[in-house]
Amino acid sequence: MTYCVALKLDEGLVFLSDTRTNAGVDDVSRYRKMFTWEVPGERAVVMMTAGNLSITQGVMTRLTVAVAEEGAIDAPAENILTVPDLFRLAQVTGDLMRDLVEQHGDAIEKEGASSAASIILGGQIKGQPPRLFLIYSAGNFIECGEDTPFLQIGEIKYGKPILDRTITHQTSLDEGMRTALVSMDSSVRSNLSVGAPFDLTVVAKDRYSLSVSRRVGEADPTFRAVSDGWSAALSRAIKDLPRVDHWFDERASS
Amino acid sequence: MTYCVALKLDEGLVFLSDTRTNAGVDDVSRYRKMFTWEVPGERAVVMMTAGNLSITQGVMTRLTVAVAEEGAIDAPAENILTVPDLFRLAQVTGDLMRDLVEQHGDAIEKEGASSAASIILGGQIKGQPPRLFLIYSAGNFIECGEDTPFLQIGEIKYGKPILDRTITHQTSLDEGMRTALVSMDSSVRSNLSVGAPFDLTVVAKDRYSLSVSRRVGEADPTFRAVSDGWSAALSRAIKDLPRVDHWFDERASS
Repeated sequence: MTYCVALKLDEGLVFLSDTRTNAGVDDVSRYRKMFTWEVPGERAVVMMTAGNLSITQGVMTRLTVAVAEEGAIDAPAENILTVPDLFRLAQVTGDLMRDLVEQHGDAIEKEGASSAASIILGGQIKGQPPRLFLIYSAGNFIECGEDTPFLQIGEIKYGKPILDRTITHQTSLDEGMRTALVSMDSSVRSNLSVGAPFDLTVVAKDRYSLSVSRRVGEADPTFRAVSDGWSAALSRAIKDLPRVDHWFDERASS
Repeated sequence: MTYCVALKLDEGLVFLSDTRTNAGVDDVSRYRKMFTWEVPGERAVVMMTAGNLSITQGVMTRLTVAVAEEGAIDAPAENILTVPDLFRLAQVTGDLMRDLVEQHGDAIEKEGASSAASIILGGQIKGQPPRLFLIYSAGNFIECGEDTPFLQIGEIKYGKPILDRTITHQTSLDEGMRTALVSMDSSVRSNLSVGAPFDLTVVAKDRYSLSVSRRVGEADPTFRAVSDGWSAALSRAIKDLPRVDHWFDERASS
């Protein structure tokens, strides 16, 4: 499996992905699931992928080749660096994914595997607001809106409660990064199929560049401080909750 | 869906279940999923059920009827109040569930539903230690052991991280109840198919009775204090984590 999370905050976008891929517990490997493109001062684009690796790699390869071939006679008319807006890029990406699923889906499912895949796409192009999309393998997509300022793909449940409780649009980028790391750490601890290292990217608003773009290892001192700090804080928080043992007396006296 | 969690602590057992059952988001009802039996001073037994409701209700009805019929000529030789130990009760319960799945499983699956079900069984019989089992619809079961002092059934992922981080055998019953409530509250907030009210039962060690046995509504003042206290503590904990924004400078200066 995989776990990827993206936050859409007033200060910009935060993206975090793991790097573990598995086809059963005895076939675990490490693959990059975060892809970034940058024309500093003009646009910054980030994608994260989950699901069938052959499908998502096929999409990423086609998108990357289109950028490399720009100007060649046979090159696609549009690529990541030339699309006028991210909504159009979501359409192009969704179409590529749907075509690949149509081409290979039946054969993949015949082998007992799933061809389902999903992609988170986000970033900002100069003169436009930051945008964030979730694209499904059927080619359709949704945009992250006002009410829930985050999107997740892959093994999403373990890391969802902390996001549900703490993330709002007003959350700062710094706090957003920490919360994403905690959400990821929760998934890693509770599920073998999500694993370090992690890829972290931040697209701060109106910078049109990648403000943070780094790989975070399990032994990274900042990550360790966040992870250990979180464990300690949770234990303390449970201890500080109001006691409930008056419920014992209730039954004893009834 | 459903969420049930049981903790096996040195001080005894904690059981917590929700009461929501759904066959799709437009067919949501409330059903009791926790069942208790008590012979004060001799034995206390608790079961919680998840999965196909017709299967688990069938098992519970048969177990309950067997108790009521005790002594009658056709009554089963063993019932919950007469089995010599909980291991034997896990066998009896598993056999009942397997028989029902064999009888109805094909027809259920033909309708597009799942016949899968699971039961958590725990308690203590005088002269024996407290025990806790997870019984599958195939009739097989596992016993909660030393390494992971809790069992979950149903929609388990949202509420697992807090258990993974904080529950040990040494956790007190009071802290265990609070943690179970937090685990349940996380599931409720992140998943529509889990809902209040909750049933909470505690079997304190060597009391051979139900030390706590109560229904906890969403508006219960103690539950509200735990839930609100937890939200506040999480927000504070995120704010108190080490800052990570030196990662911005790193890229700016490279």
